[in-house]
Amino acid sequence: MTQDSLPISFLSDFGLADEFVGVVHGVLAKLAPDSRIIDVGHGTPRGDVRAAALAMTRAIQYLPEGVALVIVDPGVGSERKSLALETNWGYFVGPDNGVLSPAVAMVGGASSMVSIENPEARIPSPGETFHGRDLFAPAAALLASGEAAIRDLGPELAPDQVQPLLLPLPDTQGKVVAGEAWWVDGFGNVETNIGPDDLRAVGLAPGAVLTVTVGASVHSIPWAGSYSDVEPGELLIHVDSAGLIAIAVREGSADQRLNLSSGVSVTLAGTGGREAG
Amino acid sequence: MTQDSLPISFLSDFGLADEFVGVVHGVLAKLAPDSRIIDVGHGTPRGDVRAAALAMTRAIQYLPEGVALVIVDPGVGSERKSLALETNWGYFVGPDNGVLSPAVAMVGGASSMVSIENPEARIPSPGETFHGRDLFAPAAALLASGEAAIRDLGPELAPDQVQPLLLPLPDTQGKVVAGEAWWVDGFGNVETNIGPDDLRAVGLAPGAVLTVTVGASVHSIPWAGSYSDVEPGELLIHVDSAGLIAIAVREGSADQRLNLSSGVSVTLAGTGGREAG
Amino acid sequence: MTQDSLPISFLSDFGLADEFVGVVHGVLAKLAPDSRIIDVGHGTPRGDVRAAALAMTRAIQYLPEGVALVIVDPGVGSERKSLALETNWGYFVGPDNGVLSPAVAMVGGASSMVSIENPEARIPSPGETFHGRDLFAPAAALLASGEAAIRDLGPELAPDQVQPLLLPLPDTQGKVVAGEAWWVDGFGNVETNIGPDDLRAVGLAPGAVLTVTVGASVHSIPWAGSYSDVEPGELLIHVDSAGLIAIAVREGSADQRLNLSSGVSVTLAGTGGREAG
Repeated sequence: MTQDSLPISFLSDFGLADEFVGVVHGVLAKLAPDSRIIDVGHGTPRGDVRAAALAMTRAIQYLPEGVALVIVDPGVGSERKSLALETNWGYFVGPDNGVLSPAVAMVGGASSMVSIENPEARIPSPGETFHGRDLFAPAAALLASGEAAIRDLGPELAPDQVQPLLLPLPDTQGKVVAGEAWWVDGFGNVETNIGPDDLRAVGLAPGAVLTVTVGASVHSIPWAGSYSDVEPGELLIHVDSAGLIAIAVREGSADQRLNLSSGVSVTLAGTGGREAG
Repeated sequence: MTQDSLPISFLSDFGLADEFVGVVHGVLAKLAPDSRIIDVGHGTPRGDVRAAALAMTRAIQYLPEGVALVIVDPGVGSERKSLALETNWGYFVGPDNGVLSPAVAMVGGASSMVSIENPEARIPSPGETFHGRDLFAPAAALLASGEAAIRDLGPELAPDQVQPLLLPLPDTQGKVVAGEAWWVDGFGNVETNIGPDDLRAVGLAPGAVLTVTVGASVHSIPWAGSYSDVEPGELLIHVDSAGLIAIAVREGSADQRLNLSSGVSVTLAGTGGREAG
Repeated sequence: MTQDSLPISFLSDFGLADEFVGVVHGVLAKLAPDSRIIDVGHGTPRGDVRAAALAMTRAIQYLPEGVALVIVDPGVGSERKSLALETNWGYFVGPDNGVLSPAVAMVGGASSMVSIENPEARIPSPGETFHGRDLFAPAAALLASGEAAIRDLGPELAPDQVQPLLLPLPDTQGKVVAGEAWWVDGFGNVETNIGPDDLRAVGLAPGAVLTVTVGASVHSIPWAGSYSDVEPGELLIHVDSAGLIAIAVREGSADQRLNLSSGVSVTLAGTGGREAG
C-alpha cells in the first residue's frame, strides 16, 4: 500500500465475451491493489494495431496521468519485444508493434524505454504465456504501485530499437487534399487524417462547400460549424472532437452513405471558385 | 481529496466498441479522483431516449446516492439545454430531452434545476464539442467532488423550462387494459407499461388466465406467481422485478414467441367469466 | 467502513445491453462501499452453466482473494438453492447448479456451505425476485464487508446437498486420446479437456505431429511450443495459457478451420511411428 499508486488506463482488443479482460483486472488488483483501473476500451477490432494506436492517441490527454496498458498484439508468440516507456504523462506498457508510438509522441515522446525481460517481473504460466496476463499486466502493476522502477523491468532500448507506427499523412496537390478515412465511430461518423489547417492551406474555410471524392463518387458537402447547421439526414464536414476533419450525417451514418471505412482514400477540394479564401 | 466524494452512476448509448466510455471515465477520474464510478450500462440503442429513461428509472433505487450521469443525446449540436438537477437522491446530469425526467420523478422530483453554461465548468475541445466528455462529465465530476455547487454550473431553470418525457399510460376500457411493450430485456422477457393494480382494477388476480392480444393474434396466458408455475417453454404473465406486468416464456423468449418489441400495443383482459375477482 | 472489505469478482451471463450488471454493481456499492468490484465477464452465453464454470476455473487463481459472485442461472424461479461457500481462497456465492463447483474444487474445496435463506440478507422486490440483485449481490456484499458471517446467511449444507458439475474427462483407448472441445475463445482458439499429461501417457511429446479427428475429417497438426513455430495461417497444437491442450491457427481461427465448437468430440493420436516417445 502506498499513497503513490498510479491509475492504470487499459486498452485491448480482447472483447468482452471471454474472461480475458477480467483476468487482467485481477492481476492488476492483486499487484497494485490501490490503483484505479480505467477501461479505455476493449472493442478494437482483433489485431488492428493502427485502430488501437489512434484510439489511444485520441484518449490520452483525457486520461489521468499514470500507466497506459495497451494490448493489441497480433504477433504474440513471435520475437517482438515487450515495451515499457517513460514519458512526461507517465508510463506506457505494451507490445513493440507501434501501438504505443502515436500516443507517446502526442505526450512529447519517451525519456526512457526498456524491453521487459526480467523474469521476476512476470507471472509463471501453466502453458503458453498469455502476455497480457503474465507479462504486460504485472509490468504495469509494478510501475503503478511503485514496486519497480522502469529500469528494473529489463534492458534499456535505444530509439531505433523500437518499432514506429507509420501513419499516412494527407497529401496536397494544387488545391486538392488527398487523405484517408482513419476511423468510423459507432455512430457512423468518419474521421479522416486531414486537419483543418490542411484545408485552410488550400484556401478553404468553414462555410465553404467542398467536393468530396470517394472512389468514383463525388459529393458536395458543406463545411459546417456544427451538426445543427444542416438538416437531419444531410451530410456535413466538420472539425470533430479530436480536432480532425470528419464527415458526418446529422442523425445518420456517413460511413454507409459514402461507403467509407477505415483506410479508404478520400479527397477534399473546393467547388468552382468558392475555394478562394 | 475530500471525504465527501459522491459515487457517479453513468448510463449512455455510446456502446463499448469505441473509447468514448473510457474517455468519460478518464475525465471523471481526473476531476473527481475519489469518486467510484458505476457503469449502469452503455448498451442503450443509439439515441433511444425513452429506453435510457426507463432503464434509469428501473435502476435508480438500487444505485448509491450521488450523481447520475445519463448521456443519450440524439440532439447533440442542436440548441437543447444541458441540465444539472438536484433531488433527494442526489444530482442528475444530462441533456434536456426528457431522459432524466422519469428517474427524477421516481425519487420525488427536483428541488433545483440549472442549465450548465458556465464556461469554467467545461473542458475546451479542439473541435466539435463532445458534450459527454467536455460538458456533462466535468459537471458530474464537479458535483461529485464537491468542487462546485449546482448553482455554480449555470442559471437556474423553472420547471416549465425543462423537457418532460411523455410516457404512455395504460388505458382501461370496460374489462380490457390496453398498454404497450416498454422493454424487451436480453433474455426476451417483455415488460409492459401495465401495473398489477391496473389488472386488479378490472377484477383480475394472480391465477387467472388472461387473454393477451398483440396485433391480430390472441393468446391465453396464465398470470403466474413465478416462472416455475409453468412448464419450460410455456408462456406466463407475472409481476416482474421492476413491479410491472411482464410477459415471459420459461427458459425461452417471449418477444420472439409473440412478435413483440418496444412500443408495440398489447391488450390484456380476462377470459370468459374468470375475470370476475 | 472497514479495513477488511474484500474485493468482489463478478461473473454473469447478463450481457451488457441492459442495466442488470449496473444494478448489481449498485447494490454491491451500497452494501459494501469499500469493496473493489472486478468484472470477470458478463458475456457467458445465456444459461450456459458449464461455460461459466470453466471461465471461473481458468480465472480464479488470478483474482484477488475475496468474494466470487457467479450468476448464471437458467433455473431461476425453480426450487434450486442459493449457495454461499467458504474456501481457502475466500467466499463463493451463486446458484446451486454446479456453476461454482469446478472453481471451488480448484482452490481446494469448501470448508463451509450454506443455503442463503435468511430474509434479513435479502432486498425486498416490488415483484418477481431478481435473484442477482435481491439475493446474491446482498449476500456477496455482506460477506465482503464483514457485516455477516457465512453462518448468518442461512442453514448449513452437507456436501451431498450441493449440486456438482459433471465435466467430461478425456478417455484413452490404446494410443488414442478422445476428448472434446471445451471452449472457443474470441480469437478462435479451441481449448480441449485434454491435458499434456494425457498425451505424454500415450508416448506423445512436443514436436510430434498428431492426427486430429473431428467428425469425419482428419488433420495432421504439429504439437508446437509456441505460435511462432508454425507459419501464419497454419494449424498447431499447443499447451494453452490455462495448461490444457488447445488447437489454434497462427493469426487465424481454428474453430472455423476445423468446424469445432464447445462440446464437439476431438480425438488426438500419433501419426505412424512418430507417437513412440
